[in-house]
Amino acid sequence: MSTSKHDHDREEGLEFQPKFDASGLVTCVATDVATGDVLMVAHMNDEALRKTIASGEAWYFSRSRNALWRKGETSGQTQRVVEMRMDCDQDAVWIRVEQTGAACHTGRRSCFYRAVQLGKAGAATLEFRDADKAFDPKAVYRDK
Amino acid sequence: MSTSKHDHDREEGLEFQPKFDASGLVTCVATDVATGDVLMVAHMNDEALRKTIASGEAWYFSRSRNALWRKGETSGQTQRVVEMRMDCDQDAVWIRVEQTGAACHTGRRSCFYRAVQLGKAGAATLEFRDADKAFDPKAVYRDK
Repeated sequence: MSTSKHDHDREEGLEFQPKFDASGLVTCVATDVATGDVLMVAHMNDEALRKTIASGEAWYFSRSRNALWRKGETSGQTQRVVEMRMDCDQDAVWIRVEQTGAACHTGRRSCFYRAVQLGKAGAATLEFRDADKAFDPKAVYRDK
Repeated sequence: MSTSKHDHDREEGLEFQPKFDASGLVTCVATDVATGDVLMVAHMNDEALRKTIASGEAWYFSRSRNALWRKGETSGQTQRVVEMRMDCDQDAVWIRVEQTGAACHTGRRSCFYRAVQLGKAGAATLEFRDADKAFDPKAVYRDK
């Protein structure tokens, strides 16, 4: 496993140098500071990263809407960032957040409300887990 | 916010139908079942997903090596999957794992061993956090 000097600096240095993909994005994982549960996986562009760092509130970049987006700006379900970390090659960000209400647009606290049954060699199936809704998405997004 | 029937089925149904990107991959977040810490963010293709589900050991697809990869096959630092969940639109997977040793190729338990200092309007900087090495990567990967 060879590592170039450039890679080494990015992995072992203290310079913030996010490695954006071809679309100018890094992956962001948000976990619940209270439970450790993964709430959502989304993306940030340079501006979303900088606004998140400066404000301590989570900003993302929506690939489907092609727009910068402050989490909760429509739903009120904001995320206060308690800690932000970069991974080894700086193409992924982990934020631990205080989640107001629920992270998922379906109304669940986490986007990960279905489990895959393990140990099946053939067709995999899902089952609901922690899938209660904290809000009614039809009411929250009714004007959208 | 309009949702097509197809999207609705993917979000509310119990059919396992991962939404692969243009490269045939979904994003996978692995967290430590003991601590809730995010250990790594990586990718799975269809085969990696199916091998993980069938075996209960984490398999990934390496974009840099363009190859299927059983976590720990070189380093011995395997991941036993305790739970696997899909997110709302099924383009991201969360696995909670029992991590043998360390997840990161740098020798740290987690790839997220640096924190970003929040509240800075200007240039962001990193600081090491939980950055002790569990193994010496030069020794583990010496033949690679």
